[in-house]
Amino acid sequence: MDIQRGRNFLLSPGPTNIPERVLAAMQRQAVELGAPAFVELSRSCLEDLKAVFKTSGSVFAYAANGHGVWEAALANTLAPGDRILVPETGMFSTAWAEMAAALQINVEHIPGDWRHGVDAGQVEERLRADKSHQFKAVLLIHTDTATGLSSDVVAVRQALNQARHPALLMVDAVASLAASDFRMDDWGVDVAVGASQKALMSPPGLGFTVAGSRALEIAASGGGPRYYWDWQRRLSGPSYMWFCGTAPEHLLFALRESLDLIFEEGLEASFARHQYLADCVRAAIHAWSEAGALELNALWEEEQSNSVSTIRVAEGYDAEALIQTCRDRFNVSVGRGLGKLEGTAFRIGHMGDINAPLLLGGLASIESALQICNIPFSSGMPNAISHLSAEQPADA
Amino acid sequence: MDIQRGRNFLLSPGPTNIPERVLAAMQRQAVELGAPAFVELSRSCLEDLKAVFKTSGSVFAYAANGHGVWEAALANTLAPGDRILVPETGMFSTAWAEMAAALQINVEHIPGDWRHGVDAGQVEERLRADKSHQFKAVLLIHTDTATGLSSDVVAVRQALNQARHPALLMVDAVASLAASDFRMDDWGVDVAVGASQKALMSPPGLGFTVAGSRALEIAASGGGPRYYWDWQRRLSGPSYMWFCGTAPEHLLFALRESLDLIFEEGLEASFARHQYLADCVRAAIHAWSEAGALELNALWEEEQSNSVSTIRVAEGYDAEALIQTCRDRFNVSVGRGLGKLEGTAFRIGHMGDINAPLLLGGLASIESALQICNIPFSSGMPNAISHLSAEQPADA
Amino acid sequence: MDIQRGRNFLLSPGPTNIPERVLAAMQRQAVELGAPAFVELSRSCLEDLKAVFKTSGSVFAYAANGHGVWEAALANTLAPGDRILVPETGMFSTAWAEMAAALQINVEHIPGDWRHGVDAGQVEERLRADKSHQFKAVLLIHTDTATGLSSDVVAVRQALNQARHPALLMVDAVASLAASDFRMDDWGVDVAVGASQKALMSPPGLGFTVAGSRALEIAASGGGPRYYWDWQRRLSGPSYMWFCGTAPEHLLFALRESLDLIFEEGLEASFARHQYLADCVRAAIHAWSEAGALELNALWEEEQSNSVSTIRVAEGYDAEALIQTCRDRFNVSVGRGLGKLEGTAFRIGHMGDINAPLLLGGLASIESALQICNIPFSSGMPNAISHLSAEQPADA
Amino acid sequence: MDIQRGRNFLLSPGPTNIPERVLAAMQRQAVELGAPAFVELSRSCLEDLKAVFKTSGSVFAYAANGHGVWEAALANTLAPGDRILVPETGMFSTAWAEMAAALQINVEHIPGDWRHGVDAGQVEERLRADKSHQFKAVLLIHTDTATGLSSDVVAVRQALNQARHPALLMVDAVASLAASDFRMDDWGVDVAVGASQKALMSPPGLGFTVAGSRALEIAASGGGPRYYWDWQRRLSGPSYMWFCGTAPEHLLFALRESLDLIFEEGLEASFARHQYLADCVRAAIHAWSEAGALELNALWEEEQSNSVSTIRVAEGYDAEALIQTCRDRFNVSVGRGLGKLEGTAFRIGHMGDINAPLLLGGLASIESALQICNIPFSSGMPNAISHLSAEQPADA
Repeated sequence: MDIQRGRNFLLSPGPTNIPERVLAAMQRQAVELGAPAFVELSRSCLEDLKAVFKTSGSVFAYAANGHGVWEAALANTLAPGDRILVPETGMFSTAWAEMAAALQINVEHIPGDWRHGVDAGQVEERLRADKSHQFKAVLLIHTDTATGLSSDVVAVRQALNQARHPALLMVDAVASLAASDFRMDDWGVDVAVGASQKALMSPPGLGFTVAGSRALEIAASGGGPRYYWDWQRRLSGPSYMWFCGTAPEHLLFALRESLDLIFEEGLEASFARHQYLADCVRAAIHAWSEAGALELNALWEEEQSNSVSTIRVAEGYDAEALIQTCRDRFNVSVGRGLGKLEGTAFRIGHMGDINAPLLLGGLASIESALQICNIPFSSGMPNAISHLSAEQPADA
Repeated sequence: MDIQRGRNFLLSPGPTNIPERVLAAMQRQAVELGAPAFVELSRSCLEDLKAVFKTSGSVFAYAANGHGVWEAALANTLAPGDRILVPETGMFSTAWAEMAAALQINVEHIPGDWRHGVDAGQVEERLRADKSHQFKAVLLIHTDTATGLSSDVVAVRQALNQARHPALLMVDAVASLAASDFRMDDWGVDVAVGASQKALMSPPGLGFTVAGSRALEIAASGGGPRYYWDWQRRLSGPSYMWFCGTAPEHLLFALRESLDLIFEEGLEASFARHQYLADCVRAAIHAWSEAGALELNALWEEEQSNSVSTIRVAEGYDAEALIQTCRDRFNVSVGRGLGKLEGTAFRIGHMGDINAPLLLGGLASIESALQICNIPFSSGMPNAISHLSAEQPADA
Repeated sequence: MDIQRGRNFLLSPGPTNIPERVLAAMQRQAVELGAPAFVELSRSCLEDLKAVFKTSGSVFAYAANGHGVWEAALANTLAPGDRILVPETGMFSTAWAEMAAALQINVEHIPGDWRHGVDAGQVEERLRADKSHQFKAVLLIHTDTATGLSSDVVAVRQALNQARHPALLMVDAVASLAASDFRMDDWGVDVAVGASQKALMSPPGLGFTVAGSRALEIAASGGGPRYYWDWQRRLSGPSYMWFCGTAPEHLLFALRESLDLIFEEGLEASFARHQYLADCVRAAIHAWSEAGALELNALWEEEQSNSVSTIRVAEGYDAEALIQTCRDRFNVSVGRGLGKLEGTAFRIGHMGDINAPLLLGGLASIESALQICNIPFSSGMPNAISHLSAEQPADA
Repeated sequence: MDIQRGRNFLLSPGPTNIPERVLAAMQRQAVELGAPAFVELSRSCLEDLKAVFKTSGSVFAYAANGHGVWEAALANTLAPGDRILVPETGMFSTAWAEMAAALQINVEHIPGDWRHGVDAGQVEERLRADKSHQFKAVLLIHTDTATGLSSDVVAVRQALNQARHPALLMVDAVASLAASDFRMDDWGVDVAVGASQKALMSPPGLGFTVAGSRALEIAASGGGPRYYWDWQRRLSGPSYMWFCGTAPEHLLFALRESLDLIFEEGLEASFARHQYLADCVRAAIHAWSEAGALELNALWEEEQSNSVSTIRVAEGYDAEALIQTCRDRFNVSVGRGLGKLEGTAFRIGHMGDINAPLLLGGLASIESALQICNIPFSSGMPNAISHLSAEQPADA
């Protein structure tokens, strides 16, 4: 039977569901790069992203994906031979560090167990020990999409402050931006990184770096060899240089619409919605875990991401078969386990343009797939359904 | 909270979910009416609809909705003063009869209880009594969207045959076409009526009548005053007259893509899918009904439509509040009770481009809304989930 | 060579070029018919069309094409056996009359020569002679798309007034609406007819009738047998009846956007633009005609339509080959000669979402096709180019 | 007057007109990155691009623009301190060299006059003089979009061969690919660079590098510090690494459709069409130049690009006013003069999804704008029109 008819339920944690209005915004011809209306649209996007990052810093938009803007962040601020500190939160912290190493930056890791977010105490300890300020930056993944862990950015900032260490705090907010609160300026983040395809609800292909004043200063005289990623050329050039050449016009048309949608809902309302719906998913997972075969990866409640939930599958059960069944029999896409969790976990994305019936349909389909794959679980539907019928929080 | 973000779950029984490919097919400019490629596209749609109606009759496509093609069917075959027989199956049989009356056709009703489909025995009885063959046609709704009843077309044909009555058998297949088997020629249907926006998965605005040879013959010399609806002009004219003037081009672009999708899946596979998923919905409703407040309207299993399920809400409970809650809190659209069932029922459409997670998400959302509205029910999710994890039927 | 790459230049007089924003507006799912936002969108379209027709009358929108709404206009106001007067202005006056005849209405024609618009004097004469007021209506095509003639509606109204004749004045404004001034109320038009696919810049499939108070009154107690077309049911019913059943949602999404575009430009500005660009086309045709083989069909300047120009091709030259060459070699669509002009004329549409380069490209391509087809002409490009470089009119 | 209604005529040399089918291909939801159908679509794009580049080398696709893939080409093959030779052909050769310098590569220029393509003799001379093979690469712009010059790649290859010099030949084919013949393997090109938004007819945001075996070998052990641009990781990784992270899905959906269109037309047929239509534009420019104020920038016929024509405007006339008038009064976008030609030239793009009426409409609009700006010219319309009515070349 072709039960693939009907819409794919996209519950992999990025790219995410794209609102109709955003898709429709791309249904137009390309325009000449210097067209005043297009220059203004570009400018407005760069400007409005500041509100999303909660910053007065400088926003740079790239035809690139998240990896691309990781490189942009590194290339502008760090030179070959520089040393950085990278606390492990999951596969994405590891990958960003691996990239830094490829750019000839010396990386020191703070190992993690993939079940807890950053340990700010350890960060402080290392920084205190670095009397000569060899560390030029601390790299932090706000929400690690592999582990579903949200780390405490404020605590890391405090660690830097306590240690009176001048290293830049560089934060990957790709998976958290617009889903959970992120306050670049209040939190003392020096460089932030984001991308279009998660809670920004746009097609992938557009990435962002945001630079605070200290980062800009360092970039002005330092950083590695670079051109495409270079902040200075983008800042000082004509509009053509805002994208270092041809702008990815259709992705900007989409972004403009996404930003409009976000502001129409309100950022804080969006956070509340994400929290409310993530709680719904976790209520279901809580029931699932009672049968002993499934478990939420993130152990501490305050670190459980509102963007993605990683569920561990006990030994003896086949996580890959589950994912395959979800896809092939139910047209439901959930994420695979990554890195250390490959083959032993699956991931449910719950960020961006999601709502209650999407999650309920996804959860119920997963339950049916669990039955097919003989993975024991206690049904989470009663919890999820009751969560949604209960009084909604006032701010949500 | 704006939990309206995310896609609307369209479970009202028409218009229905439109596949992405069908929407995308409308993303093009209009073309001159005589463009060879467009003429060919129109011709292919008319031709391919024959396979969907399972007929070698003549298909006519109209810029019109279902009501429009009801009128087309009547105007071509019946003159003011003619008499017809209309068995009541729900609001749509009533409305078609009301239209006939407005066209000055004399209507005799066979009253129904809205919980059972057509009673072929009564049809036969009336026809037998009509020795002078005053009845020129029997009007039948294959699937009445108001009641969720599917009537037995073959039995009605047999009634006509048994009574040796020459009345035309005219069948509205709007809600059944492509969802349940419909065999115009095998079943001896003289005139069939369909529309784009149900299981044909296209936007509304395009309607069809199909005429067998007897109907065409009658139309050639009879019928009422007409021009736009006229079959003869459409049959004999140049391509411009296939639509009696300007063709609704974008709706035809959409229909072409829908037909492609249907043939890719296969008509019989589509029927099996509809059966399988309708069974899933009914399994849930069965559980719901255990608490006494909810009940499937169609009493006989063989008459329960695979396109739409009408659920009665017991006195003392507020069906309208339920529907409102589904819409406002969950962005799930279910149908209201119509006609006699207004305010005391709701309807779940399950035809066209649907799949398991859509239904599961809809059912679970309805359950949450039932809780909010204090309507007692026993959860149908276990049934629905198990239905989908069980062995699938070989032909499905 | 496939020089068919690139966009088709749609210069046939309907359907016309659809703005990107209008196409994009259709890129969305269907919605439940009773969704408040959709009901409001429908209501706003019906309301805003009043401004386009310049009327306080009642607007009715149909899933139908222009022929459909012709029938709607007739069926609501005229009964079989009624008599009407139809001045000939081209193929469309003939066709509307033919439809009336099929509806068993008695038609009296005022023959025309297809090169002049309505002769109001003759209309007055006939009406004066009709002492017993047998004529129930005068049917008039404002702009006849076959001949490119725009008739003087005001003069016909005056003819009715002078003759003190109570016949309804029913005007087809399909091809003029939004391109040339049309003032339903000021001009004393009783019933007006329009459609989506001309200067309204929307896909075909949506038609309109507008009824003034006298027409509504007559319809309330008279008219022919009807249901789908019936005004009363649409006026008095719930929103579901505004379209007599399922609304053609996507065509309404498109219309909403078209109306927004029209109001953004301003109706009067749109008229001025059409005048200005039609003058450009006529300036070119004027040059063409100097070589004796081509001639603008409409003889009197004040009757030359701003929507479409019909060009006669002298005997001995092959108009059809020209049209074919435009299409096959240049991807330019011009209209064929219709009716009496079949094979001896071609038509250039210049209404709706058009601009100067579109017309210039079309005209130059036609000139190249004229060379290929050995039809003598003096180039009109200098005239057209100079027209566009001259001072623009203040109101344009 | 708002004569901005109607479609923008996009005659700036990139981004270019996007066919409807390509835009429509983006009207779909994102998919999970590992979805088999998407992986296959990506693979097919990478594979089919080989046919476009006429190579058996390795194609790499990036979420990036042309500048991005310039950097990719440099970063994989050249290390800081390496020396390269860059013949000047216009602004783009200068910009690529500037980028190389920013990456700490030593650049030696061969100055050009911007009116002739590369001087292969000078290239050979410099290479011969470089006995110790300091030059690691020669950078060549196949078609420089600023000057409208197409350089002779084969001659440069021969220069390398004659000088028996091992430098890599790296060619930017961004503006020529799919418009003019480009034979990576036959011509001995080691690294080629392309992008989506020129004759590939797709939205901007996707760039390509192609590496021959020697380039891959060098990259394996050499090149600069890199990660995002790195070929090796992309070659050896799972499909997720083909784009070094999240794939720009919608741009790939578009590219897939563009490639289909290109293969449907045929690459050679596309080249012939570009030649034929570029000749049409040049025939008009030839007439323009007779009045002494306008002149085609590229002096040698064999170097006049089939993608873009740069027209010099004589002193005393205002090129910028002309461009502004085209845009504001005619909705026609032509390119500005770049670099040395800023303010003294304009550029007409004629690549990708173009056809005769588009060019004719553009040329005629420019003529009207020339009149408005008082720039003398002899009309080129007769030449252009006659060019298109003449016998078409057999291969075109």
